[in-house]
Amino acid sequence: MTTADQRHMRHALTLGARGLGRCWPNPAVGCVIVRDGRIVGRGWTQPGGRPHAEAVALAQAGKAARGATAYVTLEPCAHTGKTPPCADALVAAGIARVVVALRDPDPRVDGGGLSRLRAAGLKVEVGVCAREASVSHAGFLRRIRDGRPMVTLKLASSFDGRIATQTGDSQWITGPAARRLVHLERAAHDAVLVGGGTARDDDPSLTVRGLGISHQPVRVVASTRLDLPRDGSLARTSRQLPVWLLHGAGADPDRVAAWTDLGAQCLSVHSGADGHLDPTSCLQALGQAGLTRVFCEGGGQFAAALLRADQVDRLIGFTAGVAIGAEGRPSLGSMGLKALRDAPRFHLSDSRAIEGDVLHVWLRRDADQS
Amino acid sequence: MTTADQRHMRHALTLGARGLGRCWPNPAVGCVIVRDGRIVGRGWTQPGGRPHAEAVALAQAGKAARGATAYVTLEPCAHTGKTPPCADALVAAGIARVVVALRDPDPRVDGGGLSRLRAAGLKVEVGVCAREASVSHAGFLRRIRDGRPMVTLKLASSFDGRIATQTGDSQWITGPAARRLVHLERAAHDAVLVGGGTARDDDPSLTVRGLGISHQPVRVVASTRLDLPRDGSLARTSRQLPVWLLHGAGADPDRVAAWTDLGAQCLSVHSGADGHLDPTSCLQALGQAGLTRVFCEGGGQFAAALLRADQVDRLIGFTAGVAIGAEGRPSLGSMGLKALRDAPRFHLSDSRAIEGDVLHVWLRRDADQS
Repeated sequence: MTTADQRHMRHALTLGARGLGRCWPNPAVGCVIVRDGRIVGRGWTQPGGRPHAEAVALAQAGKAARGATAYVTLEPCAHTGKTPPCADALVAAGIARVVVALRDPDPRVDGGGLSRLRAAGLKVEVGVCAREASVSHAGFLRRIRDGRPMVTLKLASSFDGRIATQTGDSQWITGPAARRLVHLERAAHDAVLVGGGTARDDDPSLTVRGLGISHQPVRVVASTRLDLPRDGSLARTSRQLPVWLLHGAGADPDRVAAWTDLGAQCLSVHSGADGHLDPTSCLQALGQAGLTRVFCEGGGQFAAALLRADQVDRLIGFTAGVAIGAEGRPSLGSMGLKALRDAPRFHLSDSRAIEGDVLHVWLRRDADQS
Repeated sequence: MTTADQRHMRHALTLGARGLGRCWPNPAVGCVIVRDGRIVGRGWTQPGGRPHAEAVALAQAGKAARGATAYVTLEPCAHTGKTPPCADALVAAGIARVVVALRDPDPRVDGGGLSRLRAAGLKVEVGVCAREASVSHAGFLRRIRDGRPMVTLKLASSFDGRIATQTGDSQWITGPAARRLVHLERAAHDAVLVGGGTARDDDPSLTVRGLGISHQPVRVVASTRLDLPRDGSLARTSRQLPVWLLHGAGADPDRVAAWTDLGAQCLSVHSGADGHLDPTSCLQALGQAGLTRVFCEGGGQFAAALLRADQVDRLIGFTAGVAIGAEGRPSLGSMGLKALRDAPRFHLSDSRAIEGDVLHVWLRRDADQS
């Protein structure tokens, strides 16, 4: 049974999702203000993270906010950052009741917003659509709790798990609708991340195209030695759209300087015993820099390293009806696995046909949704 | 819009499908007899291929068949085989109108049944639910037209297209519901077919289990040199349930004799330039022996050979949410492909979640449904 509270909260979640990929390091919150069953205000966190969803919705509601119920997908903030606390703004506007999907674990909030509302005499309810909200805020929550962004790993492959023929021919395995969906996913993440091999072999631009979306994610490449072509797509556009490069401590300082000159931001991270960049260290660096949602598009070696290190929260697979065979390039590199019980497991969250391809979405098996 | 004719024909198709896997080399036909809007007879081709669907339905209808309409999923036969022609039986029973889904291309029928009915003054209509009928009769039609059975290839793999770890650990990649569906598919095929490597490595029994189905498909193994263990599951059960072995002309005659002694049927087929059994020759031999529907379960080399030779009509994939990595065993062996445009393409026919796994079904792209 869907109650009115759930209905309004789902509405707020839908609004909040508009900010995904655009308001990091802040959460993409949605807010709906309802008085006498009518929606008088709607808001979502604006690009860059400000103003917050509550402020937008309150401004829209104006005097109609008095005595109304506010539905907010995350606990309103209680601390004065670059904006005054949303909890205070709700009180000042005369809101009578606040329904919150999730408590905000950020130590600067962490129940403080709820207490403030209650202390001011507002009715407060927490936990409506909590599961859906934890999916929507997964990136923000992951960063608060673990210091790293949430990671979505995309693998688009042939029926037999290959991403290219032996000669590297990969255009196109999946159809236009599946590729469009990849661009939508890029737009809903703060950054797109690939390994150095993919950046060298495919010269990708990693931008969102063909959707009428002007917002672009940060382009991140993980390359131990920073041996990336400085005349490719990324280098040519690094002044217009952000490029971040994760590299090992031993990377040639001239390369670091050259890329910095080109406009890229270079971040030094730890390497593992195998000489490759440590995936955990890569993601910690990205979390430190404020990213909450990262969309990894391979290559196979980097994807395998992320999986081995248990740093993947969500897998998006596209399977095409084409058979490439064993000489083709594998979607995942070496995992060093012997027993099946040691293989990383995910649980199915969604599957459907996308024109002629199959989409399947999986979530970390043992993880909570956050 | 569904007409009453379509509704009754779909009913007949559902009935006919009960015979799939059980009445080869005959088609699995369904028949419904309707008088004044009431169903007075239902029949489907019985195990072993006789009696035919029409005979069963007419027997059930008795005198009620007089003036009734018969819905038959394939043109009634016109030739006297081990049973008298169904066309004559329909006339004799006083049927007034016959609705047929598909004309039977078998040269012994091929319009002869329809002419016979028309000559006797019955109203005859052809083509109702023809597409659905061509799917249901795909195996029978493939054998009539191309001399080989229809081939369904099953591949159940990890997210990255692997069927086992490097040590061969494969139990279980997919869950119980997916495995149950595989047994249902086995039951709906005349035979289950694997390559010799799979027979040696996995010692499979290739039977239908856990479904309360007593009928069993023929178990077929393709092994060039017939170097299969004579103390395994297949050898132990080859007197109770049929085992057919496809082998090369150069296979050791002692092995052929030993397997024949064990109750298996040995069929010599051509080998290709690479020394492996020629997949086309394998399937022609199975068609010659009467099989209309074959369910191939690998291994990777044999599956790749079938695909390369364009002998696969239907692909069934199961994708599990587990990542095995590049050392794992690939679902498909070498295909010798360079350009993506040369890779065999299939079009998506169905995809859905089967508990925690994804099922996807694909059909030959350029083939008609037959």
